[in-house]
Amino acid sequence: MTQFDKRNISMMMDLYELTMANGYFANEKEPRKVVFDVFYRKNPEDGGYAIFAGLEQVIAYVENLHFDREDIDYFRSLNQFSEEFLEYLKDFRFTGDIYAFPEGTIMYPNEPVITVLAPLIDAQLVETAILAQINHQSLIATKASRIVRAAQGRAVSDFGARRAHNMDAAVYGARAAYIGGASGTATVMAGQEFGIPVNGTMAHSWVMYYKDEYEAFRRYAEVYPDNVMLLVDTYDVIHSGVPNAIRIAKEVLEPAGRRLKGVRLDSGDLAYLSKKVRKMLDDAGLADCKIVVSNSLDEYTITSILNQGGRIDSFGVGERLITAKSDPVFGAVYKIAAVEENESFVPRIKVSETVEKITNPGLKQVYRIYCEGGQAVADLIADAKEAVDVSSPYRYVDPEKPWRNRYFENCTAKKLQIPVVINGKRVVKKQSVGEIQEYVKRQLETEIWPEEQRFENPHKHYLDMSPSYYEMKMNLLDEINRHY
Amino acid sequence: MTQFDKRNISMMMDLYELTMANGYFANEKEPRKVVFDVFYRKNPEDGGYAIFAGLEQVIAYVENLHFDREDIDYFRSLNQFSEEFLEYLKDFRFTGDIYAFPEGTIMYPNEPVITVLAPLIDAQLVETAILAQINHQSLIATKASRIVRAAQGRAVSDFGARRAHNMDAAVYGARAAYIGGASGTATVMAGQEFGIPVNGTMAHSWVMYYKDEYEAFRRYAEVYPDNVMLLVDTYDVIHSGVPNAIRIAKEVLEPAGRRLKGVRLDSGDLAYLSKKVRKMLDDAGLADCKIVVSNSLDEYTITSILNQGGRIDSFGVGERLITAKSDPVFGAVYKIAAVEENESFVPRIKVSETVEKITNPGLKQVYRIYCEGGQAVADLIADAKEAVDVSSPYRYVDPEKPWRNRYFENCTAKKLQIPVVINGKRVVKKQSVGEIQEYVKRQLETEIWPEEQRFENPHKHYLDMSPSYYEMKMNLLDEINRHY
Repeated sequence: MTQFDKRNISMMMDLYELTMANGYFANEKEPRKVVFDVFYRKNPEDGGYAIFAGLEQVIAYVENLHFDREDIDYFRSLNQFSEEFLEYLKDFRFTGDIYAFPEGTIMYPNEPVITVLAPLIDAQLVETAILAQINHQSLIATKASRIVRAAQGRAVSDFGARRAHNMDAAVYGARAAYIGGASGTATVMAGQEFGIPVNGTMAHSWVMYYKDEYEAFRRYAEVYPDNVMLLVDTYDVIHSGVPNAIRIAKEVLEPAGRRLKGVRLDSGDLAYLSKKVRKMLDDAGLADCKIVVSNSLDEYTITSILNQGGRIDSFGVGERLITAKSDPVFGAVYKIAAVEENESFVPRIKVSETVEKITNPGLKQVYRIYCEGGQAVADLIADAKEAVDVSSPYRYVDPEKPWRNRYFENCTAKKLQIPVVINGKRVVKKQSVGEIQEYVKRQLETEIWPEEQRFENPHKHYLDMSPSYYEMKMNLLDEINRHY
Repeated sequence: MTQFDKRNISMMMDLYELTMANGYFANEKEPRKVVFDVFYRKNPEDGGYAIFAGLEQVIAYVENLHFDREDIDYFRSLNQFSEEFLEYLKDFRFTGDIYAFPEGTIMYPNEPVITVLAPLIDAQLVETAILAQINHQSLIATKASRIVRAAQGRAVSDFGARRAHNMDAAVYGARAAYIGGASGTATVMAGQEFGIPVNGTMAHSWVMYYKDEYEAFRRYAEVYPDNVMLLVDTYDVIHSGVPNAIRIAKEVLEPAGRRLKGVRLDSGDLAYLSKKVRKMLDDAGLADCKIVVSNSLDEYTITSILNQGGRIDSFGVGERLITAKSDPVFGAVYKIAAVEENESFVPRIKVSETVEKITNPGLKQVYRIYCEGGQAVADLIADAKEAVDVSSPYRYVDPEKPWRNRYFENCTAKKLQIPVVINGKRVVKKQSVGEIQEYVKRQLETEIWPEEQRFENPHKHYLDMSPSYYEMKMNLLDEINRHY
């Protein structure tokens, strides 16, 4: 059991979930089953995709969901809930089913990445905890994926714990960053909890504690002769840090048959300095000495530094990754999609002034459609019970251009939602973060169009609908329109 | 014990703290004492001040800091640390002293808000946990303070849990928002852990679960007759939501001697809609019915909505508060300031290409100087041992204009740093979040110039120095300059 699992996060909910639950309980002794969908409306930073992350923690949360005596006492102290309802909560466990994309799946706006099919109260109570987990980890995984792409094959490590929005943000953020493609983290607790590779060498305080920079470097080299990575910007990179590092390589390491592994720059103009430092190291016969940089990096600064010929071997990325600084909100929502009536699910739709905010009603399945050599050409929403065969010509509807007649042909369709919790119990194997990282990488390399991975104005992935699903949605909108 | 206290967060550190500690341990059996300062360099959003928050969690963390057997095993698995060092960590406890501003103190850039005076290894290991906690809570408290000011006396409640960067960010974020002036939170766990008032009524799912909006409203009014707050934007605010709410007031509540407490708008143009809704409610004799709004609010949108005459009684603020979206990084750092030699502390300074990044060396005290009717006119840094008496003329140095001769006269000076941990043990009373909120409010109302609280181009608080402190700093810079 990890440290974070030792706390019970069942109380992680918005109060309205409880006021509604108490109300439902008062109105009907056995509220009906409902369907809720988790989906989001806009890719971060106007990108072409996002990475679905956090599912493992969602499963652990619903499996453990329960209220302790002190929780019930707290509810009672609010003077809003009936004693019958509090009694009911004492033995409450989540009894529903959850269908979800496998963790690490590339996802797009407006498709249900998680569907909760559960008795009304069960479904309502899990809203906030599911959203907070998925929103946070998907945000950071997606940001990491962008930064890793910008680094063009160079390692990117998470250095952000100190600027994270508290402990969970550092630890689950490191997990999400790794899923998104980071090679490691500086955060020890994340290494311990998830088996992520950890890295770290010295801070400026090491250099400043000793009498001078050379002594500080020498002391480090004596303790870690096989892993000498020196921070060279405490006083002056060019006039002191790098010359002292080179002296260490020559005077301390080479006599002992060791090499200087690397130097780290944490301030200044990293494009300019890295080129200058590279030349100094090369001229000293240290072509194998790596240059690591950190300091306010993200996909934009990294792209720009590399465009200017920065000679950098790996990046330590801090605050701009761990907070997703340039777009720090992932906006997944949790919306009711259907209500059980006489053993079938009757669709519900949320209309809105804004067309993009209209929900996709009903209990449905999402298919990823692969054609033309294995690339994913579109996703398709269909009724959960509908058969979808795209090997022979299959007509679909693009909801943005519904008047067109379009067909998939010679394609394959993969169901994206799989059962992960049935009757409140996990039905999928726990995956390692390494497996999830690998899955992300494989999709980006072989399935997802490079055009969707571009930073600037990327191709918008199609979200199509089966003809009967589209018709159902339009009829429902029409009905609402007549009524309100 | 709260749920979050059940986990041991001692492993919340960057790996370099351990590689350095292992190195120090190898180099000296009894490393000397050192002084580290926590300070930040820039107010969020170019504001005039920030609020110091998170201290209570820092104290709890250092008091509990220890490594369990599985932690030592994990360290060993990294193959970087000596067995002697791992043995030493088994019994490690933080034995140092911590001086800090009282939690909730208004703070400014470049002053030490926390000073850690401890044996080198103790001081080094606490870096990341202290920074993550202070950075996160100060960020959110400061953001909340700005939003509350924009709301001009109207209540602001935190609705952000679902968009927070995971669980801690929601719960400690709600705490920080309350400290910064929020009136409550929707996050149940924050209410339970810190005694913050919680609020919540219904989601769109309540309205959509029932056959129609009127039935949904009626059901709610029957369960909560004394607290009927109706969400009116599920279908159409003007043509359906508000008319149905008024029908509930007339047909269900008034016959029972009850009043409609409020309506909530969660979409659309809130300035336009709130004025329209206010008129509809007033015309129906419901002048006492409150209007609550939510949806992408922060200090900028609230200011703009109120400038347009929005008729709003209270605000629910979500993602833009709980992530501090427009400036989501609080950049406090942890820098070594002095090293013990022969029972006194020898100052250390970090130089940099950028003048603003030069640190303030030595063991020091910060005074807040009050003149002219109790307003804080400046903060003053002096050597910790120096006497500062500003009742008679006291010469100070403005480090940005050191050539000027300036005096404080007829003023009072308050020491801002107080001892909070001595020899590893807490020496201050735990405060309630209500007390801290009250302290923040009192400072902003009576001590802090309104000119510093302005959003646009606020007055920059002066950070002055005692003449001898300034001289010491200049001498140290000069010395570094000759050496490197």
